[in-house]
Amino acid sequence: MTAVPKTEPGALMAAEIAEQPAVLARLLADGRPEIAEASARIRRYAPRFVLLAARGTSDHAALYAKYLAEIRMAVPAGLASPSTMTVYGARPELAGVLFLAVSQSGGSPDLVDSLTVARECGALTVAVTNNPGSDLASAAELAVDVRAGVERAVAATKSYTAELLALYLLLAGAGAAESAAPLADAAERTLATGAGVRAAARYRRVDRLVLSGRGYSYPSAREAALKLMETSYLSAQAFSGADLLHGPLAMIDAAVPVIAFVPPGHGGSAMVPVLDRLAVVGANVLPVGRPDGIPLAAEGIAEELLPMLEILPLQQLAWRLALDRGADPDRPRGLAKVTRAW
Amino acid sequence: MTAVPKTEPGALMAAEIAEQPAVLARLLADGRPEIAEASARIRRYAPRFVLLAARGTSDHAALYAKYLAEIRMAVPAGLASPSTMTVYGARPELAGVLFLAVSQSGGSPDLVDSLTVARECGALTVAVTNNPGSDLASAAELAVDVRAGVERAVAATKSYTAELLALYLLLAGAGAAESAAPLADAAERTLATGAGVRAAARYRRVDRLVLSGRGYSYPSAREAALKLMETSYLSAQAFSGADLLHGPLAMIDAAVPVIAFVPPGHGGSAMVPVLDRLAVVGANVLPVGRPDGIPLAAEGIAEELLPMLEILPLQQLAWRLALDRGADPDRPRGLAKVTRAW
Repeated sequence: MTAVPKTEPGALMAAEIAEQPAVLARLLADGRPEIAEASARIRRYAPRFVLLAARGTSDHAALYAKYLAEIRMAVPAGLASPSTMTVYGARPELAGVLFLAVSQSGGSPDLVDSLTVARECGALTVAVTNNPGSDLASAAELAVDVRAGVERAVAATKSYTAELLALYLLLAGAGAAESAAPLADAAERTLATGAGVRAAARYRRVDRLVLSGRGYSYPSAREAALKLMETSYLSAQAFSGADLLHGPLAMIDAAVPVIAFVPPGHGGSAMVPVLDRLAVVGANVLPVGRPDGIPLAAEGIAEELLPMLEILPLQQLAWRLALDRGADPDRPRGLAKVTRAW
Repeated sequence: MTAVPKTEPGALMAAEIAEQPAVLARLLADGRPEIAEASARIRRYAPRFVLLAARGTSDHAALYAKYLAEIRMAVPAGLASPSTMTVYGARPELAGVLFLAVSQSGGSPDLVDSLTVARECGALTVAVTNNPGSDLASAAELAVDVRAGVERAVAATKSYTAELLALYLLLAGAGAAESAAPLADAAERTLATGAGVRAAARYRRVDRLVLSGRGYSYPSAREAALKLMETSYLSAQAFSGADLLHGPLAMIDAAVPVIAFVPPGHGGSAMVPVLDRLAVVGANVLPVGRPDGIPLAAEGIAEELLPMLEILPLQQLAWRLALDRGADPDRPRGLAKVTRAW
């Protein structure tokens, strides 16, 4: 009988969360020439529209890219519905369109098929993956490697922040690398506060949670909700601040706490009326990006880069909460990639 | 003291659910010339991209329009993030873009601002509303009135199916009105089965629910989740079938039932592997569009039109479930538009 290595519950996820400052620093140091070349190619192409394709965690990185495209490139952008091409056989006219696929593994057949169709339909195709040898990277005209290293935990963490940084460097334009220089250090200091770990005590007996943010923080709310669902089995729902007030607000009571992303900047400011409404209904709110909630080492960091900081304590929260609730965040039920032989 | 008319709990929502066959018939009879003119104008414009803007229930109608644009018009489409224009001041290049805003009231300042900016940025702007005198209708180059009549219930029902039909007539191209002719009758027969009302008994003690669909049924899953949240205060979450398998599956157990949209057609067929995975984890699944779950009067109805049928029993379910749980679906907490003086 072969000995199967046994790891502490959550050890993989904890290690990959902690690795993120180094991953960001490495991408900034080693990834820049490749990304600069792809970025220059996109600039010359001057896309009339950006179409983003991804699933799961990477879909939240794609949503972040949508904000970058619209705000920094002044180009409208949309998230692709892969089924229109793969299930319904649509063949849209995509000349002049930038089709950007984001995937940790680069192995999802759905995405490879969509990107292949998009390329046939005339789009410039770019794959942002953590696997330069993947089918998706091979199928795309341009490939960007986010260099996060092998991701062993089922719940993606380091590949997410690496995807965000790669997309920022790819789309944010001149001066992006310089703005991002202090990021790895800020990530280190944000993780070191341990505020995310401590917050887990608030949610030990909670089954339902709402997360909310606006602008660049909306993808953070979505990604935090996914982490909590897949590791702690909470029904965690994310809404943009504006959408929260259109219906879902009715569901919020003392049993449904809210985590609100309110970092410095336009997105956080736009959440002020939402916080006011939440106060009226007596919601239990934890503000992320404020000293009285979960603080971030955000000084000197551009608003566009804050999503790479504000997700970190939420990853810590998901990890700690899963353990506190008796789950193993490294082995989410229903999602195990290998037979549970341990 | 003025006497305030008192209505039975849920009476408004029940009446508006029941009114839908008549609303659809009226739109088909009276709305066609206006929509045909707008549709011809869009065809001549030959958009290179469709940008959709909406909030809440209308956002699900906009998502439906995204599928129509991509599949029936072969034009890529995306849901606008209004905050990029209103919070971050983005001014994207929108020449050749169709900007389509959908809103029951036509009164949301966020949408009016986005549409105004889009028009300044060169887009052809179209407003689909239930209020031809609204600010949104006035701000747009073309306005389509969905003619649903005054909607009194806070939880939108008849304006949703009317928006779907208006968008179908606007975007689906030649033959759309003919395909839609049997719709009102099919809606009548679908409501008459009462299957949605009966299903409420299954969920009386449930706090968390997952809804799933693919393609044209994905907006139905989203809208059904919103109805359940705003009337019954459930944490109801919608995922496309593909996304459900990327993480959220871990959260599903005996306490988290699933409602799956599997009507005849490509979208329903693409759900088969999802149902297989749900069976493996022992999920409690209610199939919508199948005789062994919630049946639809779908014979002779094109797949693109099924969203106007499959939401009907889910509206009935949300209404009945709210009453069974002691809530008044006409007066969702936190969302009341007037002081609760009753």
